Amino acid sequence: MNRAIVLTFALAMSSLAPAQTFTNTLLPQPSHLTAETGSLSWNTSITVGVTHFHDQRLDDAITRTLERIEHKTGVPRQREIGNNSGATLVVDVDGAGEAIQSLDEDESYTLASTPTSVKIHAATVVGAMRGLTTLEQLIQTDGKGFFLPAVQIDDTPRFRWRGLMIDVGRHFEPVEVIKRNLDAMAEVKLNVFHWHLTEDQGFRIESKLYPKLAGSGSDGLYYTQEQAKEIVAYARARGIRVVPEFDMPGHTRSWLVGYPELSSDPGPYTLRREFGVEDVALDPTKESTYQFIDAFLGEMATIFPDPYLHLGGDETPGTQWKNNPRVVAFMKEHNFKDTEELQTYFSQRVLEIAKKHGKHMVGWDEILNPALPTDAVIHSWRGAKSLYDAAQRGYQGILSQPYYLDHMKTAEEYYLADPLPANNGLTSEQSQRVLGGEVCMWGEHVNELSIDSRIWPRTAAVAERLWSSANTRDVDDMYRRLGVESLRIEAVAGTAHLSREGAGLRELAGTEDIAALRTFASAIQPVTFGDRYKEQHTSYLTPLDQLVDAVRPDPPSRHQINVLVRELLKQPRANSEARTQLNNIFQSWTNAVPVVEAQMNRSPLLALARPRAEQLAKLAQAGQQTLGYLSGKKAPAGWKQSTLAEIEAARKPQELVRFVFLDSLEEMVKAVQ
Amino acid sequence: MNRAIVLTFALAMSSLAPAQTFTNTLLPQPSHLTAETGSLSWNTSITVGVTHFHDQRLDDAITRTLERIEHKTGVPRQREIGNNSGATLVVDVDGAGEAIQSLDEDESYTLASTPTSVKIHAATVVGAMRGLTTLEQLIQTDGKGFFLPAVQIDDTPRFRWRGLMIDVGRHFEPVEVIKRNLDAMAEVKLNVFHWHLTEDQGFRIESKLYPKLAGSGSDGLYYTQEQAKEIVAYARARGIRVVPEFDMPGHTRSWLVGYPELSSDPGPYTLRREFGVEDVALDPTKESTYQFIDAFLGEMATIFPDPYLHLGGDETPGTQWKNNPRVVAFMKEHNFKDTEELQTYFSQRVLEIAKKHGKHMVGWDEILNPALPTDAVIHSWRGAKSLYDAAQRGYQGILSQPYYLDHMKTAEEYYLADPLPANNGLTSEQSQRVLGGEVCMWGEHVNELSIDSRIWPRTAAVAERLWSSANTRDVDDMYRRLGVESLRIEAVAGTAHLSREGAGLRELAGTEDIAALRTFASAIQPVTFGDRYKEQHTSYLTPLDQLVDAVRPDPPSRHQINVLVRELLKQPRANSEARTQLNNIFQSWTNAVPVVEAQMNRSPLLALARPRAEQLAKLAQAGQQTLGYLSGKKAPAGWKQSTLAEIEAARKPQELVRFVFLDSLEEMVKAVQ
Repeated sequence: MNRAIVLTFALAMSSLAPAQTFTNTLLPQPSHLTAETGSLSWNTSITVGVTHFHDQRLDDAITRTLERIEHKTGVPRQREIGNNSGATLVVDVDGAGEAIQSLDEDESYTLASTPTSVKIHAATVVGAMRGLTTLEQLIQTDGKGFFLPAVQIDDTPRFRWRGLMIDVGRHFEPVEVIKRNLDAMAEVKLNVFHWHLTEDQGFRIESKLYPKLAGSGSDGLYYTQEQAKEIVAYARARGIRVVPEFDMPGHTRSWLVGYPELSSDPGPYTLRREFGVEDVALDPTKESTYQFIDAFLGEMATIFPDPYLHLGGDETPGTQWKNNPRVVAFMKEHNFKDTEELQTYFSQRVLEIAKKHGKHMVGWDEILNPALPTDAVIHSWRGAKSLYDAAQRGYQGILSQPYYLDHMKTAEEYYLADPLPANNGLTSEQSQRVLGGEVCMWGEHVNELSIDSRIWPRTAAVAERLWSSANTRDVDDMYRRLGVESLRIEAVAGTAHLSREGAGLRELAGTEDIAALRTFASAIQPVTFGDRYKEQHTSYLTPLDQLVDAVRPDPPSRHQINVLVRELLKQPRANSEARTQLNNIFQSWTNAVPVVEAQMNRSPLLALARPRAEQLAKLAQAGQQTLGYLSGKKAPAGWKQSTLAEIEAARKPQELVRFVFLDSLEEMVKAVQ
Repeated sequence: MNRAIVLTFALAMSSLAPAQTFTNTLLPQPSHLTAETGSLSWNTSITVGVTHFHDQRLDDAITRTLERIEHKTGVPRQREIGNNSGATLVVDVDGAGEAIQSLDEDESYTLASTPTSVKIHAATVVGAMRGLTTLEQLIQTDGKGFFLPAVQIDDTPRFRWRGLMIDVGRHFEPVEVIKRNLDAMAEVKLNVFHWHLTEDQGFRIESKLYPKLAGSGSDGLYYTQEQAKEIVAYARARGIRVVPEFDMPGHTRSWLVGYPELSSDPGPYTLRREFGVEDVALDPTKESTYQFIDAFLGEMATIFPDPYLHLGGDETPGTQWKNNPRVVAFMKEHNFKDTEELQTYFSQRVLEIAKKHGKHMVGWDEILNPALPTDAVIHSWRGAKSLYDAAQRGYQGILSQPYYLDHMKTAEEYYLADPLPANNGLTSEQSQRVLGGEVCMWGEHVNELSIDSRIWPRTAAVAERLWSSANTRDVDDMYRRLGVESLRIEAVAGTAHLSREGAGLRELAGTEDIAALRTFASAIQPVTFGDRYKEQHTSYLTPLDQLVDAVRPDPPSRHQINVLVRELLKQPRANSEARTQLNNIFQSWTNAVPVVEAQMNRSPLLALARPRAEQLAKLAQAGQQTLGYLSGKKAPAGWKQSTLAEIEAARKPQELVRFVFLDSLEEMVKAVQ
C-alpha cells in the first residue's frame, strides 16, 4: 500500500497541528486515568528530583527515561538528580521492592501531572519504572513544542505474569538481540522473559560442570555464564524476571551429543538439523539421570535467581522408552500403564529436585496429570481448556496457546484472546490461579535479522491484554495506538522490526530503489509456521533469506484497508474519500508490479515470489472494478463469482507469503449488487 | 529524488536479466585482473577444501565467507571443510603469517576461477582473507541462479597502512558499533583500526592501575579491558591491526578529573562538555608525569599488542604552561624558546617510553620538529605538505588531511585525493616512507545512531584509493560499484548506514508514512562540521536528533543527477530520457514538499528544516523552467540572473542541512542560451 497516499488521507482528516490537549496513545492503557485541564511545557527548565527511597536501579531508570525524552524532544535533560521535593518531576518511591522480583512484586504506581509539576509515586522501584514508562509515552507535541498533559493515573496490572518466551534453541540469538527485546518488553510493561535455552537443535547455555552440553551441543553458539548473568541483570534493571527453561525429558537431543548416557539408547548422537517432534528423551529410569539433573540445576540456580524454573515436559513420544526392555521392565515394576505415567514419574522427580534448589517448577501442559503435585505451574500451549482444568484442580497456570507469534495471526486476534474471558466457568478463587500469559516466539523460522519483526509490534497488543482491564477491547483504538507504539519501540529499544523490512528488500533487489517493492511488501505477509514448514521443508540448515523473511506479519496496511472498506460500504455509491483512497491503493499496486517483476528478473530469490506479483496485479484490477460496480456500474454476469473464486485461489499458501487484504476485498465484492 | 523513477530509467537501459558474464563490481579493484571465458555455477554441489596450512583464524574466515554467500544466494553451504585439494573451492595458504600483524604482513593473494573450480592462494592467512572477500564480491547472478565468473586475479595492496580512525572520546560508541565497523572495514580490505580512546570529553578505556582515569573521566561510558581485548581479537580475526591512541599532552582534561596532579595547574577539573581546543595539558616538567605515563602505557601494552602506539600530540596551545612560573623556569633552564620546544621535549620523552614498551610512536603532525628522532611516525592532519616534508627528512608518515569524514565531502572528492599523486617531488625512497592513509571519523557530531552513515559508504572509496593502483580513478565507475558495495556492507557487516535514514525520518515524522520525507531527504545532506558547530553551538550536551542526523552525506541522488545533467547537456534540445528523468525528479520534489510541510506542522524537530522545504519547492520549479528553456523556449529577461542568485542563496549553510544538487542545477541554468 502506498503510504504517502494513506498519509494524505490522514492529514486531510486532521490537517492542522494538534492543540495542546491530551491525545491518549498509552499502551498498555492504565487501569484508571482521568484527563485534566492544562499541560506542563517540557522545556529546559524542567528539574528532576527523587524523594524518600532511591537506589542505583531507580537512578538508572530515571536517567534512561530522561535520555529518551531528550532524544524525542531535543530538549537537553537535567543531568543531576537530587533529593528535591520541589522539582518539576518528582519520583517518590517507598522502597526497593523485592531483592529477587517475584509474582508478588508490587508494580502499581500513580502519576499525577499538573500545569506546573508531575509526580510519580510507587511502593517499589519496579512500580516507579512502570510509571516512568508511562511518562515517556505521555510526552506529546502541539507542533510547536512538547508538553505533558495534565492527568491523574492510578495504575496496576490485571495479571501478574506477563511474559515473552524466546526460543534460542532452534536458532541462536545474540546477546544484543535479547537486550533490545528486553528494552522493548519494558516499554509495554511486560515482566517475564521466558528463555527457552535448550532444544534438540542446540544447547545454548554454558555449564561448567558438564562442559560438553554446550561444548558439543551448540555449534559453538551459546551464552557464557557471564553473558547469562549480564542478561539477568539487564532484565532486573528493567523490572523483568528471567525464567529459564531446560526442556526435558524430550527435546533433549543436544544434551545427548556430549552425554549419550543420559538416554536409554546408547547413541551416538549428533545435533538435530530437522524440526518437529523427535524420538529421543532422557532416561527416567536411571538414578544417574536425576543426579545429573540435580547437579546441573544446582549450577543453573547460581545464574538464575528467579523462584520459577521451567522444565518443559512437552512432546515426549516415549519411543525410545518403549523400545528399551529395561525401561519397559521398570514401567511394569512400577505399574505404569503407559509412557505418560512414566513421564509423570519423571515430572514428580524433577519437581522434587527443583524444590530442593528453592524453585517452583513450571511445565508445558502435557505434565498435567492426576499424580502431579499442585505446586507445579501449568503452562498451557495446547488450549485454554487445560489451563481451566488445571485451575479447577488447584494448579496455577499461564496461557500461551493463543499467543504463538509464528501462527502469524493479526495483532487483533492476539489482542482479543483473553486469558479469563467472561463466563469461563471458574470460581473467583480458581481464576486467581490463572497467573497471566506468555507470548511465544518459537525459533524454527527466525534468526537475528527477522526476529524483531515477528515479535513487534504484535506482542504489544498482548501486553495490553495482560496489563489493562478486560473491557479495554476497542480494536480500532488499539491499532491507532499500536502504530505510535511501534515507532516508539524501535526508537527507544533499538529493535529493527520496521527498518529490517527495507534492509531485507534492498538485499533481495540488489538496489536502494525499493519504493515499488515496499508497496508490494505492504500487501503481503509471511505464511504460518505450518505452511512454511510444509512448503519449504525447512530445517536448521535452511537459509532464511527470502521475501517471507523480509516482510512483516500484519503490516499496518491490513487494518487501514479494512477501515477504508468499512467506511466505503457505509455509503457504497457516494464519492467518498475512502473510495478515492482505495482506488489509489489499488492503482499503486498496479504501478508497482511491473517494477517489481523487472527486479525479479535480476534476483533469483525475489523471483520465487513472482506468482504473488502476478496475482497482485489481477487483484488490484479486481479491486478497481469492484469500486466501479459498487458505485452503480453493472457488473457483467459471472463477474462476482469468478472474482470471488480468484480471491479464494489467492488465499492458498504459496511462495511462503500471503495477501493481507483478501477479507476486505471479498467483503467489497460481496457487497456488489 | 524519487528512486522508483531513477530505477525505471536504469531498467530501461538494461531491461533484460543479465547474461552469465562477468560484471566487475569489485571494490577495491584488484591490482591485476583478467576476465576469462565461462563461469562456475554456485549450487549445492560446491565443495570446500583447505590444503597445506590452516588454523582457527582461517577456518573461521572461510566459514564467514560461506555463510555470507549462503545468505546471498540461498544455496545451503557445505559445513565440513576438510583437507581436500579436489574440492570445488580450494583455499591454499602457506602459513599463519605474523603472530602480531605488522606493516610487513603479506596481504597479497591470487584467485583463479574456472568453470569447474576456484582456488585462492596466499602466503598468509591475512592474504587468504583478502581473497575470500574478493570471492564474496565476485558471486553474481544471471537472474536464474548464481555463478562465479572465470577470472584470474593477482592482487596486492598499493599502501601498507589503510586505516579508519574512530574517535570514541567525544561520543562513546558501544562495542557492537565498533565490531560492525570492523566487519565493514574488512569487506573493503582496510587493515588498521585507529582507536582514538581519550579526549577532553571522555577517557574511554579502563585502567586498573589508575582506576580514576575512566572511573571519573567518562560518565561511566568506557570499555573494560576485557571488551578492549575482545575487540583486538575481533579485529585480528579479520586481518585488522588495532592502533590505540592516548592523545597527550593536550586533549587530556578527562585524565585530570581523577588525577589533577598530572597538570601544572592544580585544578580541580570536571569533564569538558564544550568542543574545540582546550587550554589544559599534562605537565611536561614533572618526572611524576613520565612515571605515570610509563606505568599506564605498560598496562595498555598488555591489551594492545600492535607495534605502533599513537600518542596524539595535536592542538596543545601551551596556555597552562605559560601561566605557571615553575614551567617557565624549567623552559628557561632548558633553553626552550617557546612551548613548541617544550612539547618536543615531551614528545622525545614519551617516544622513549613507547620504545621501552616495544612500540613505535605515531603522532599528529604538530610533533614534527627538527629535534624529533626519525623513528616517530608522522600522522598528517594539517595538509599533505607536512607528510612530504616528513618523508624528505626521513620520517614515515600517514595521510589523513583529505579524509576527514566530518567535512562532509563527496565520495568523489575523497576518492581522488591521492597520498602520492604524480609529481609529488619525492624520491622513490622518500615515497616508500608514505605508509598510506587513514579516514578520520571525529566524534563531536555522531552517536551510535548516526556514525555508520557518516562512515559508509564513503570510506569504501578511500579504501580503493589506498589498495588499488594510482590510475584506478574513474569516478562514474567508482559510484557504480559503490552503490553495490554500500548494500553489500550493510548486508554482511550489519551496519545501519542505509536503514538508519528511514528510522530517523520515522522518528522525526512520528509515522511510518515517510515516502515524501525520503524524497526530501534524498535532496539534502548534512552541513560540514564547522558549519554545524557555528550554527548550533554544539557541545557534548547537544541532542543529536534532528534532520541533519538522519540524512546521509553524499546520497546517491547527487551523482545520479550529475550524470543526468551531463547527458542532458550533450543535446539540450533533444527529447531525451535524461530530460524526462530530470523532469520527474523535479516533479517528485514539488509533490513531496506539501506532504513534508504538513508533517513539519506536527513535529517541532522536523519543522526546524522548514526553510529548506520551501527552498526545495522553488528550486524544483526553477529546474523545470530550466528544462523548458533548454529545449528552446525563450527565458524572460533577468530570469537567468535571478535563478543563479536563488541557487547561490540556497548554498548558504542553514538549518544544518544543504542541498546536494546545486552544482548540477547551476550548470543547467548556465547552459540556457
